[in-house]
Amino acid sequence: MSQPTYEQDITALLVIDPYNDFISEGGKVWDRIRGVAEANRCVPNMQRVLETARAVGLRVAFAMHHRYRAGDYETWKYVAPVQRAAWTHRTFEYGTWGGEFRSGFEPQPGEIVAQEHWCSSGFANTDLDLQLKKHGIHKLIVIGLIAHTCVEATVRYAAELGYEVTMVKDATADYSDEYMRAALEFNIPSYANAIMTTEELVAALQPR
Amino acid sequence: MSQPTYEQDITALLVIDPYNDFISEGGKVWDRIRGVAEANRCVPNMQRVLETARAVGLRVAFAMHHRYRAGDYETWKYVAPVQRAAWTHRTFEYGTWGGEFRSGFEPQPGEIVAQEHWCSSGFANTDLDLQLKKHGIHKLIVIGLIAHTCVEATVRYAAELGYEVTMVKDATADYSDEYMRAALEFNIPSYANAIMTTEELVAALQPR
Amino acid sequence: MSQPTYEQDITALLVIDPYNDFISEGGKVWDRIRGVAEANRCVPNMQRVLETARAVGLRVAFAMHHRYRAGDYETWKYVAPVQRAAWTHRTFEYGTWGGEFRSGFEPQPGEIVAQEHWCSSGFANTDLDLQLKKHGIHKLIVIGLIAHTCVEATVRYAAELGYEVTMVKDATADYSDEYMRAALEFNIPSYANAIMTTEELVAALQPR
Amino acid sequence: MSQPTYEQDITALLVIDPYNDFISEGGKVWDRIRGVAEANRCVPNMQRVLETARAVGLRVAFAMHHRYRAGDYETWKYVAPVQRAAWTHRTFEYGTWGGEFRSGFEPQPGEIVAQEHWCSSGFANTDLDLQLKKHGIHKLIVIGLIAHTCVEATVRYAAELGYEVTMVKDATADYSDEYMRAALEFNIPSYANAIMTTEELVAALQPR
Repeated sequence: MSQPTYEQDITALLVIDPYNDFISEGGKVWDRIRGVAEANRCVPNMQRVLETARAVGLRVAFAMHHRYRAGDYETWKYVAPVQRAAWTHRTFEYGTWGGEFRSGFEPQPGEIVAQEHWCSSGFANTDLDLQLKKHGIHKLIVIGLIAHTCVEATVRYAAELGYEVTMVKDATADYSDEYMRAALEFNIPSYANAIMTTEELVAALQPR
Repeated sequence: MSQPTYEQDITALLVIDPYNDFISEGGKVWDRIRGVAEANRCVPNMQRVLETARAVGLRVAFAMHHRYRAGDYETWKYVAPVQRAAWTHRTFEYGTWGGEFRSGFEPQPGEIVAQEHWCSSGFANTDLDLQLKKHGIHKLIVIGLIAHTCVEATVRYAAELGYEVTMVKDATADYSDEYMRAALEFNIPSYANAIMTTEELVAALQPR
Repeated sequence: MSQPTYEQDITALLVIDPYNDFISEGGKVWDRIRGVAEANRCVPNMQRVLETARAVGLRVAFAMHHRYRAGDYETWKYVAPVQRAAWTHRTFEYGTWGGEFRSGFEPQPGEIVAQEHWCSSGFANTDLDLQLKKHGIHKLIVIGLIAHTCVEATVRYAAELGYEVTMVKDATADYSDEYMRAALEFNIPSYANAIMTTEELVAALQPR
Repeated sequence: MSQPTYEQDITALLVIDPYNDFISEGGKVWDRIRGVAEANRCVPNMQRVLETARAVGLRVAFAMHHRYRAGDYETWKYVAPVQRAAWTHRTFEYGTWGGEFRSGFEPQPGEIVAQEHWCSSGFANTDLDLQLKKHGIHKLIVIGLIAHTCVEATVRYAAELGYEVTMVKDATADYSDEYMRAALEFNIPSYANAIMTTEELVAALQPR
């Protein structure tokens, strides 16, 4: 595949689930991903990609998981395992610190914050596709959590919906290297037009 | 068409946009629809349908329009006229009385409140279809505002998505009788399996 | 609303249902719409818009209704009235002349033909949105049949999905002037950014 | 997770891409998957699941990949890697043996054949969700090819759309055991409510 280009008017950075519960010390899921996340410097890399995208004038969008609220699932007849886990653990509980953006990842004015997603894909049953179209976006640079669930799901949906995707492979994390490999080496290569490091992406975004 | 049946486990009442701005004295749009709404007793009929649905144990769902927030549209490249109007008039402004449920129409525990819709259809770019499927719903009874915009759009989408629709024709309103006729006599008959009065619906919902 | 512009790389002409059953002498529905269609010169206008779009290099897309095949609906639990009519009348029957493109409206190489739609919207349950995105399209010029069903449905969906729409009001037809008015004066103005005649559109498409 | 039940009126078997190119000797992709497929008896297991589903009266649905046709991709601005591969290899070429159902897997009258999918998910940009809803289906038993692309994509989408999924793990195949493991052990457990063998599924489907 040839090196993608990132035209300012059609490219957006998509940040997936930068919640405290995922990427902050003390978050409910942090201990399960910190091994991978610290080894690949996931959080500083995410921060660097975000700052670079803002600096070069790319539109930034956030795809945030549904924050748990009491009563969410009690009346559902059909509950997927990933939803049952969110129900059990009250992940990203509404009104708690775990359900807030990690400091440094708060949306700024003019940035897109899509409606919360109920399962894993940032696109499914939300306004993310609409918001991207309203801004003329066709290319997405993807960072965030967790590689094999929300990130892979969102990359897959992006490809299905017609977007050209670049995955930043050291700005994501997962429970183990094997999960990372399943997402980044086995699955996402079929759907992302490029998979690169933060270093490579930052270089590619610099004006020439 | 034959008379639909309303099995409790697959039927829901869908209430569209019961905001103060639409159906309360002093709301931003009320003066434009009050002529029709008072003539057909729209608000008391909506109330009666809602109470009956709850009494007989139907699932209730609410499809609510996007509440205006500053910055919503400024960065959009493409804005539909109905969105430009919402932008100009700040309809259902977030944090104001106009953007609240009219008293008596507040959702109760266990009822579905879909994500807010950006245009007219309660289904487009929201989780309404998902929520209905999670509850096993296939049939919708539709009431609410405004007949030729959000109501007709939602009925059309419901049919496109495979739902069987009953429209309650005196539990909606519009700017004039001509608009009502366009929606209720010209368009909705192609998509709703039944169109009936509140009186007829309440009778049909009674246990036999 | 200001006059839209039609940039070649982001604008497409969308032709809805140019089947013989709709717009050819002898078609199953032609007798019901010929009064309006002959008065506003619908078919020659459609032809002129199509030729002009091709001449100025706009992408052309076709949204075609499901062609009736035996067995389509027999197993469905839920059938909308518009589908029951298609079932009864075998409209656009597969393998018959009525289900063919009217002569002069056949797609040419490089033009988009979306999957057939089951209800009224060319977007619902088809690949039309995907195909348009794959070609970078954000603006649609809409012509075709029938004004208050497939055309209005497709215009509404286009707006919901984020497209900017121009409706060509004398390149469509319907059962009566009242139906035309319901679609073109009451409903479509909320969703289309411009509504114009063939003459006006052709002038707007000329290079300046 | 508890053992799912398979009520006849709300359960369907979903067969993904039973094309000659995938699962017949001489098919374009067969040599890449035959190692796994012969080891787990994928094709006979698929056949057995299909026959059992028909015998117990479950609705059967087919999700078939887009068959390659000349001109499909030449005008696209954005092409995902999985689509570029289909373009290069002319997979499931229309009008060829490779693009036909493998003998024994042809749809029978009353079975659902969804529109062809362009990427990997049988739901994306097709009428599969509509067809399932029209038949009242909420639960899916999934078999077919290839595990980490179309099968996983379709299972993920099914969960996103609200379906309850059972994956039959020896009625699918992939390029290697590692790919199988990525799909079946790392990813699908988050989205499928049950993952079982053909033997277990057949037992679960027997009337009690």
